[in-house]
Order: sequence, then C-alpha cells, then structure tokens
Amino acid sequence: MNPKLQWLRNKMSSSDLEGLIISNPTNIKYLTNLDAEGILLLTRKENIFITDGRYIEQVHSVLTLFDEIIVYNIRDISQQDYENFFMYCENVGFEEDYVTYAQYKEYIRKYKINHLVETENVIEKQRMIKDEDEISNIKKACEITDNCFSHILDYIEPGKTEKEVANEIEKYYKLGTDGISFDTIVASGENTSMPHAVPTDRKIQEQDIITIDMGCKVNGYCSDMTRTFFVGGIPETIKKVYDLVLKNQNQVLQQMKDGVSTRMLAKMVENDFKLNGFDLIHGLGHGVGMEIHEQPYINSKSDTFLKENMVVTNEPGIYLPGKFGIRIEDTVQITKFGCISLTNSEKNYIII
Amino acid sequence: MNPKLQWLRNKMSSSDLEGLIISNPTNIKYLTNLDAEGILLLTRKENIFITDGRYIEQVHSVLTLFDEIIVYNIRDISQQDYENFFMYCENVGFEEDYVTYAQYKEYIRKYKINHLVETENVIEKQRMIKDEDEISNIKKACEITDNCFSHILDYIEPGKTEKEVANEIEKYYKLGTDGISFDTIVASGENTSMPHAVPTDRKIQEQDIITIDMGCKVNGYCSDMTRTFFVGGIPETIKKVYDLVLKNQNQVLQQMKDGVSTRMLAKMVENDFKLNGFDLIHGLGHGVGMEIHEQPYINSKSDTFLKENMVVTNEPGIYLPGKFGIRIEDTVQITKFGCISLTNSEKNYIII
Repeated sequence: MNPKLQWLRNKMSSSDLEGLIISNPTNIKYLTNLDAEGILLLTRKENIFITDGRYIEQVHSVLTLFDEIIVYNIRDISQQDYENFFMYCENVGFEEDYVTYAQYKEYIRKYKINHLVETENVIEKQRMIKDEDEISNIKKACEITDNCFSHILDYIEPGKTEKEVANEIEKYYKLGTDGISFDTIVASGENTSMPHAVPTDRKIQEQDIITIDMGCKVNGYCSDMTRTFFVGGIPETIKKVYDLVLKNQNQVLQQMKDGVSTRMLAKMVENDFKLNGFDLIHGLGHGVGMEIHEQPYINSKSDTFLKENMVVTNEPGIYLPGKFGIRIEDTVQITKFGCISLTNSEKNYIII
Repeated sequence: MNPKLQWLRNKMSSSDLEGLIISNPTNIKYLTNLDAEGILLLTRKENIFITDGRYIEQVHSVLTLFDEIIVYNIRDISQQDYENFFMYCENVGFEEDYVTYAQYKEYIRKYKINHLVETENVIEKQRMIKDEDEISNIKKACEITDNCFSHILDYIEPGKTEKEVANEIEKYYKLGTDGISFDTIVASGENTSMPHAVPTDRKIQEQDIITIDMGCKVNGYCSDMTRTFFVGGIPETIKKVYDLVLKNQNQVLQQMKDGVSTRMLAKMVENDFKLNGFDLIHGLGHGVGMEIHEQPYINSKSDTFLKENMVVTNEPGIYLPGKFGIRIEDTVQITKFGCISLTNSEKNYIII
C-alpha cells in the first residue's frame, strides 16, 4: 500500500475509526495522486475509489497494483453495495470542513452509517509537514517566481496597464509550470490600498507605487510572493511605511523556527504596527502546498506551533484607503533552528 | 432595495423564514453584485453583509444607498451582536448544499438559532432563469468563443502541441473577456478518448482527430463550446461515430424548448447511442451562467423541465478508450417555442 494511505490507516486505528470517507479532492490527490472527481472510501479491509465514466481511463493510467486501490464506476454500484461498504463499522469518519450539510445527511442515508464522526482535519494536518518531494516542488515554483519577477521588472514601464502586466506574468508561467497558483494581483497607485485588488486597465504612471502578488504551481505545488516597488522614486511618507513593513517582515523571518507559536508572531507584528498608528488587517501568513492557502494559518487567533518542514508565507502589509498600500511576502520553509526563505527577490527599495 | 433582494425577501415570507444566511459567494454576487469574501444575512428588518478589512473599501465602492445593505467589519462584531441578528426568529434558512457540516454547527452556536432550515437551492433555482442582461453577457461570451475558435483553426498546424493551442486560446480570451470560464481542453489523437483530458506536450500530427472544449467569461457570465475536428482527413470508422453524435446533437436542439423534460432529452440520446452500441458516459448538458456548471443538469436522472430563458449546454459525446472520442457542444438559450444556439461555429466535418 502506498505509504500515505498506510499512515492514514494507522491513524484510523488509533482513533477508533473502522471506516473513513474522503471527499476533498485535494486530500484524495495527496493520498493517491489521483486527479479525478470521485470519493475515496477506506473500509475495514479495502481502499475504494468511486468515480465516473469520464475518469475511469485516467484513473487506471495513474494507479499501480502497489497502491492497493479498487476502482469502481459509480454506474455499477447498487444501493446494496453502498450499504455493504461500511457494514459492521461502528464509527466512520468524514471531513466535516469539506462535506456540506446536505452531503452529510446523504452519506448517512446512502451508506447506512451508525456514527458518522468528525475527523478534525486529520489529513490537512498531515499535509502541513512537507516531505522532500513536496519541498522540492515548492522550491522550484518559488525559483520560477523569482525569475518571473525579475523578468517583469524589465517588462514594466509607464503606459502599460495593470492587466497587461498580469497577462505577462501568466504568459511567463505558461512554460515550465502548471500555471498560476492564484489570480495574479497587479495594483498600481491608489489601487495598492486594496489587499485583494483585481488588475484593471489603469496605466502605470511615473511616480507610481506598484504591488504585485504572484505565484505558480509546479507538479501541483504552489509558490506565493509579493513585492511592492516604485516608478521613478519614493515619496518620504511612503518610505516610512515601507520601512516599517520590511522591518517586521525581516523580524518575523528571524523568529520563524520549529516550536514557535504562530499567534505570537502575528501579535508581534500587530503590536509594532499599532505602536506606529497602523493596523494589520489580514493574517500574517498561511501554509502553502497543494493549495495556495492551507493550514497552518498565522494570525492572532491561531493556536498552532511551527514545525520543521512546514512551508508558510510571511506577509505583513499596511493599507491606507484611497492612498496606497504596502505588502512584502515570502514563501518560507521552517527548519529545526530557523527558516529558509524560498522566494528571494530583492526586498530593499526597488525603483524602476 | 435591489429587486433581487426584494424577490428573495418575498420568497422568505412565503416559506415562513424570518431570517436567511447566504454563504455561497456566487449567490452573494448574484444578489448584491459584491465580489468579496463575506456572509450576507437577511434578518427581520435588515440586509447585512459581514466582511473583513481586505474588502471593506471595495464593498463600499460597489454598493449604493439603493441596495439597502449594511456593511460590517467582522472585527467589530461581538458575540452579543451575532446573537442579536436573528433574535426572535423561529426559522432561519441556510444553504445546505454549500455550507459544510462544521459551518452548520458553528452557525447554530454563534447566532443562537432555534431552527436552521434547509432552503433547497432557492437562489440557484432562481438563477436558472436568466434576465436580459445576463443573456446578453452570455451571448457576448459565446460570440467571442466562436471568433476564438475560428482564430484557432487558422492557428493550429501539425507540430504545435496541445498546450500551445490551449495557451493561444487563453491569450485570445485575455482581451475583451474576464478570461477563461474553465480550464481549456485541447486533446489530440487518442487523448480525445478522455472527456476531461488535460492539454499535454503531444504534438498535433497529420491525420489527427482534435477535440477542443473552451469558454470564456464576460461580466462574470460563462460560455461553453466543444468542437471535434480533423487534420488532413477523416477515417470512415470515425466518420460514423461523428455522424451519430452530430445527429443526436441536432435532434436535441430541435427538441429543446420551454416545458420539455430534461430526463427525456438525455434518455433519447442514451437510447440512440445504445442502439448503435455506444454509451453516453456523462450528462447531456448543464446550466450555464455565473458558474460554468449550474442548475439545471440534463441527464437521465434529472427531474427538471426546461423553461424560457434558461441557458444550458447540449453536449453528447462518445469515447472509445485508447482510440478516440467525439463531443459536440453548444450553449443554448431556451425559448417559449424552441431554442437559440448561442454558439454557432461549424458543426459539419471540419478538416484543416
């Protein structure tokens, strides 16, 4: 059996679960490498993947005997089959943070389950800790992101629109990656004050401030980086805010290591921002992996501790509505005694 | 109040709901035009949108007084506020097909709700019937898709890879649309036998069969079209299957109109395929609107009837594993006495 499924089966025994229903496609892909719509059932003795005609061929081309996964076409399963899957199982786990209320009720009906039990993100928690392959993919995605950013610095000039810049980034990512890991943010001038700005037809101007938040996927794994930079020069008022954001971003990098409280990190930045009259209006960071946003979340309400081989972002930002905003973000690998920034583009003043 | 919210409030009174929690972002966008993370609460007297610091500025720039929506920053809401929203409400509705089981439990706790009631896709059902603006956006997206397809027929030649063709389609869509409405499918040769093929580095060859499934978004509304065509010529064995798919696609177009059973349409195609020794392994079609796949679903298990101003796809397909596949798909507007195909690219043999 593949080691991730074996690990999950061990986890099931220790949690008194005789069965498990895995519905979240990202978790299914993580466990099986399958990229197909369907549902994964771990029954007492078997691993079963139920899919439909559109995916049967794909699925068979990915799985090997070693996986020990039995594939069913949903068309061939009777109501009796459904009831047999978890027969004599007292507790069957499900993903309460993915499964809708309607599906929850449907599972109980269809599989005739006695106790459908919440599994508290057992797979997502395992996914927080990346193995060698996963880190190598994220590293690669971060490297390409650094290269793409330096390409974009050459490409940008007054007169180009935010949309054109975003398109150029996506075009760059087309080669050598699986594409963007989220909708690229290119914000200029006062648009930078919106953390989630959507690229517009606004033309880059002399003396503009520009924020780019970008990332790609390599073999299914994401990168995430933000830089804020300037056209022609930096006004003194903006410089002060930039310095404050950068100082905090660097301090967080110095603090990040195995064992550190994520809440403490976020509080540290929040306090320093407040002392200077600003607010941190979004989380300080989040896990990065198969999803662009995944556990752990780093904010003043989170209760996780960083662990070796977690990969997270470090992205403090300050936003002054109608004026400007500044965010600086790296993707970072946590190690035993510190951390390694996987994105490495320039963070000191960039003036084009 | 905006007419869509007013309509929903009328619906609430007739369903004995004193409150409603709307969590699905597509439904929120449909009702309010807001494109921001958050939750929409319809309480006894007020419409409330709760969002966070990242979106407050955006939200205020979209809403007008006429909308009658009060905006809260989630940071400023106390536990007491949450409990007050639905105080004295006996029944509060929620979206059971969107809300996870974990959120469902959290809503009951946080808002102190007596009866959290399933609303059976009341908004999705309303979304099935498109108004003039919505149809005009879909029409525009379909027109651009037709133009893009004829551009692609000029662009494709032996030696180009599936990925290159997909990239060219996405590049074309960059101008004048909000981008693709789903990941473009470009499959060639034996890859066409997978209905959900992902573009690969396979180079187009002489005598290839090619399937392209493509669509874009205009003002948030999708188009969806598939064509299967040929390089150099069509082998007789493939021609027979192509003719069968096209015959059925045309027959469905002739049958589609207000009042027709979606199940009947799917059964008609399934039966004709079976008579000829083939299977319809996916649904015959689906609604198209803000989402690329939305209600109604047209398959042999569906129980809806077509209505005037629904917009749906008509996409029969036949797939022979390891050999080839053929799918022909249009986006279609249902009218009182028939239907109008909104995508109009050539469907007779296309040979490049």
